[in-house]
Amino acid sequence: MNVGYVGLGKMGSGIVRNLLRAGNKVVVYNRSREKAEAVVKDGARLADSPAEAAANAEVVMTMLSDDYATEQVVFGDNGVASGLKQDSIHVSNSTISSALAVRLMKEHHQRGQGYLSAPVFGRPEAAEAKKLIVAVAGERALIEQVRPLLDAIGRKTVVTGSEAWQANALKLCGNFMIASMVETFGEAFTVIRKSGMNHHMFFEVMNELFGSPVYANYGGAIATEKYEPAGFALRLGLKDTRLVLEAAGEVAAPMPFASVIRDHFLSAIANGQEDLDWCSIAKVSARNAGLK
Amino acid sequence: MNVGYVGLGKMGSGIVRNLLRAGNKVVVYNRSREKAEAVVKDGARLADSPAEAAANAEVVMTMLSDDYATEQVVFGDNGVASGLKQDSIHVSNSTISSALAVRLMKEHHQRGQGYLSAPVFGRPEAAEAKKLIVAVAGERALIEQVRPLLDAIGRKTVVTGSEAWQANALKLCGNFMIASMVETFGEAFTVIRKSGMNHHMFFEVMNELFGSPVYANYGGAIATEKYEPAGFALRLGLKDTRLVLEAAGEVAAPMPFASVIRDHFLSAIANGQEDLDWCSIAKVSARNAGLK
Amino acid sequence: MNVGYVGLGKMGSGIVRNLLRAGNKVVVYNRSREKAEAVVKDGARLADSPAEAAANAEVVMTMLSDDYATEQVVFGDNGVASGLKQDSIHVSNSTISSALAVRLMKEHHQRGQGYLSAPVFGRPEAAEAKKLIVAVAGERALIEQVRPLLDAIGRKTVVTGSEAWQANALKLCGNFMIASMVETFGEAFTVIRKSGMNHHMFFEVMNELFGSPVYANYGGAIATEKYEPAGFALRLGLKDTRLVLEAAGEVAAPMPFASVIRDHFLSAIANGQEDLDWCSIAKVSARNAGLK
Amino acid sequence: MNVGYVGLGKMGSGIVRNLLRAGNKVVVYNRSREKAEAVVKDGARLADSPAEAAANAEVVMTMLSDDYATEQVVFGDNGVASGLKQDSIHVSNSTISSALAVRLMKEHHQRGQGYLSAPVFGRPEAAEAKKLIVAVAGERALIEQVRPLLDAIGRKTVVTGSEAWQANALKLCGNFMIASMVETFGEAFTVIRKSGMNHHMFFEVMNELFGSPVYANYGGAIATEKYEPAGFALRLGLKDTRLVLEAAGEVAAPMPFASVIRDHFLSAIANGQEDLDWCSIAKVSARNAGLK
Repeated sequence: MNVGYVGLGKMGSGIVRNLLRAGNKVVVYNRSREKAEAVVKDGARLADSPAEAAANAEVVMTMLSDDYATEQVVFGDNGVASGLKQDSIHVSNSTISSALAVRLMKEHHQRGQGYLSAPVFGRPEAAEAKKLIVAVAGERALIEQVRPLLDAIGRKTVVTGSEAWQANALKLCGNFMIASMVETFGEAFTVIRKSGMNHHMFFEVMNELFGSPVYANYGGAIATEKYEPAGFALRLGLKDTRLVLEAAGEVAAPMPFASVIRDHFLSAIANGQEDLDWCSIAKVSARNAGLK
Repeated sequence: MNVGYVGLGKMGSGIVRNLLRAGNKVVVYNRSREKAEAVVKDGARLADSPAEAAANAEVVMTMLSDDYATEQVVFGDNGVASGLKQDSIHVSNSTISSALAVRLMKEHHQRGQGYLSAPVFGRPEAAEAKKLIVAVAGERALIEQVRPLLDAIGRKTVVTGSEAWQANALKLCGNFMIASMVETFGEAFTVIRKSGMNHHMFFEVMNELFGSPVYANYGGAIATEKYEPAGFALRLGLKDTRLVLEAAGEVAAPMPFASVIRDHFLSAIANGQEDLDWCSIAKVSARNAGLK
Repeated sequence: MNVGYVGLGKMGSGIVRNLLRAGNKVVVYNRSREKAEAVVKDGARLADSPAEAAANAEVVMTMLSDDYATEQVVFGDNGVASGLKQDSIHVSNSTISSALAVRLMKEHHQRGQGYLSAPVFGRPEAAEAKKLIVAVAGERALIEQVRPLLDAIGRKTVVTGSEAWQANALKLCGNFMIASMVETFGEAFTVIRKSGMNHHMFFEVMNELFGSPVYANYGGAIATEKYEPAGFALRLGLKDTRLVLEAAGEVAAPMPFASVIRDHFLSAIANGQEDLDWCSIAKVSARNAGLK
Repeated sequence: MNVGYVGLGKMGSGIVRNLLRAGNKVVVYNRSREKAEAVVKDGARLADSPAEAAANAEVVMTMLSDDYATEQVVFGDNGVASGLKQDSIHVSNSTISSALAVRLMKEHHQRGQGYLSAPVFGRPEAAEAKKLIVAVAGERALIEQVRPLLDAIGRKTVVTGSEAWQANALKLCGNFMIASMVETFGEAFTVIRKSGMNHHMFFEVMNELFGSPVYANYGGAIATEKYEPAGFALRLGLKDTRLVLEAAGEVAAPMPFASVIRDHFLSAIANGQEDLDWCSIAKVSARNAGLK
């Protein structure tokens, strides 16, 4: 298939490589050119603008860091929307707000273009290793058209709803599940340490108890305080927590855990942790208990 | 080894069977006699009091539902403490307060008896299947003496500290980790449902993401609202949350997540859920968002 | 002075009457005409659009329910911004976001118009009785120009900062102080009632203890469950809580109390309380404890 | 009347002086003798034990810092209970747990002695100036007997219930109302300061808005960071918060605000604030936002 891809950060680069491996032709664009060049070596062709990346594509995919960047890339000068042909499809892999997904749906529709939300679960390593979980939502016929691409970048594709924004709400809830686990580790480790016990031993017990690679990954990072380089920056974790609270607010659902997480991310940022990995939220619990 | 065992609920019965399978002689006591009879068929001998269960034992183990029951069984008339010989060891498998563990240590010590805390992780099925994780703390020499028994009842034995109460604090932190996961599912399912999505599908995605039997077990129970019969009653979940907040309070560690969990357990109890499984705390999030 | 006033709800009408009493000429506009007619009887002149209300004014004041309404009235067709002369001043009395205040400042400035934020504290009765507290921020020279008007509508005018948005942040913090008091009453009344005591008696003791008209007002309303007609609707209370969390988020300040209030307002809305007075948030605490 | 008084801290001393002023004969006891000597100069007679202070009293009153001290003084060697005559009445002014009040009621009853809980609202200055609010509960006939004493020490006596423990639950709820106000100030001041505004000005506006001496007192102390000497020590504030959570837990009432307060008191203690005034909880919000 002819595919455009815009946004070549840690996640996007891995995804593009898997699209290439599956035999697709991929035209890429990235604001800073160096990041694009790595995937060009792997076979992608480089475009000069999002519009150009979209111009000959049946499907153009985007992976940007937030709502603002997505709006710029899609609706800005030489943006994806202006370049994409009628009946071609924009698939957004970014973790963006439900509200923006609603707008993307509407504006692409007005231009005769298709739109799907297909955010992904997994860290950069998983993107590289084709181990992402892809949560897609939107019109069923469009989903079937792009399914080969989604199957090419992840280990599992799940259809989450018939309206695109639903996939975004689901993705935000999934990130909340992870953030909540991380905060939980932070609180427990603090009690363990202040009780004179070895928190590595506690991590070992929890690892045995939960038997989950996600617990192993995050629990291990927190236990060893390995917060750099950030797999997912804390300021992005705050962004996602704001978005899940917003999405929950729209359907009148209280989320007391998400509120605690938001407060702790803010405290982390007030203490200079915005560029550390988001699991460094654990430092907030430690600090609040006077550790270190 | 000659072992006494007091407390034959869902957990204790499974443990006793594994002690018997490992070739130990086990004398058991339970307040209500019927429960004791099942394990008698499996080869245990029945005693008329905790003291009698302890009388000839090198090691007497107890598995009671809370601090109050433990105090009655150990220090009450014909209690374990009055029956146990000098140099014999009391191993408490119960989830009790750190404070009571300190008292047990002290009082057994004064009588020339040994004491260890060895609470366990796992539900009744895990007790039956010798899949518990045993977290033991106390004097190292005593631990080595009872290790064959601990290895006989679980899949892994972890030494958590040199003071008995530390194992109790750790067990409470572990239960908090589980309660926190359950509350997280409750909040996320609520947003998913109110957003018009299928929460079974969300559970499937999370199951894939976390790949943990604990998530599969609890997430599945919540998704299908299977809260009876209770593997672990909600009122006991509240008890443990109170105890972890107390243990954290003693070392001046805030636990905002545990506070939310406590509030939600109280709300559940105010709504008649005390005998449902503790994962029915998820109903509180649903109710607070006006579901059902 | 020649004054324009846009927005004649419960608050605006009282304010306009006080502007008239102080001898000002007031041209008013309100979307629904009936509300405007009451103040016309008191001497105001009626305009056909916000622009017309602003056209001959030295100062145009606005009191709208939220950001959206303010944006429509100011920047929409025949809006305030298009009608206001150069060097005339727009004074916003509304409780709006700091972010919108920043935008108002910027856009009026570009048109050569002045802008001040001057939100007010007080319920409709206080507006009528000239008992508002006016919190104004912006350029000092402009404040001195409009001070006679501010003094005419309230019992006290406080200059809160040199940047207009600061008054909005302060107003949101003040509303948070009140919301927090209301939530506190809700939690305490619930414990009192469930302990078999008379919550009117508790209210009497607190009234004596705090000696505050605000406690008397809100505590009395909650004790007697008088939630209609709403002096300030609960959905507006939620709006303000979202805005204070947003304002606090921008300066990286956690607000755990505001988070609890947000969650309880959402639960209230999920239970159909959006048009009740915001102090009906107390029903959430009662419901969570199984009362009624 | 012949009155015994045990506990001559800042509160007890002021109360005793008012009992003396009202013409009562007062025999006092305090663990550290110096504090007792001040009131001896004012006309009180000094006893050598709590029992002796109670021996000839129609009414013995106690004002101790917590449950533990109260238990020691009442049930310890030469305690109040052993000295008090049949039909004489013990009136507890202390802020103690509902649970201890239940026990005091029961044990005095068994000895043929009367018992009332009569905790008081007000700081040391209010005790001195006879401005306390006295919340009494218990048997109506006993209350009428001691009413002249209660009226002698405060500005208002309120009968809160027919069971003694109810007055204690009510007092804890009242202290929660104050703690909640203090936490609210802490969060708001932090946002104000981080927004570049003067928090003294914000305090002035709130003072005007609420018009309450309690707000003036605490808000002023927080604004000027005057936390020493402590009118009421932070560790006692934590104690009361624990007790109100316990009392609320017994009637299955969630108290999310009290939970936040508990967490912040713990954080304060972890940072060495246990002997500062309890309103120094405001430092926690400031610290969590990176101030200072």
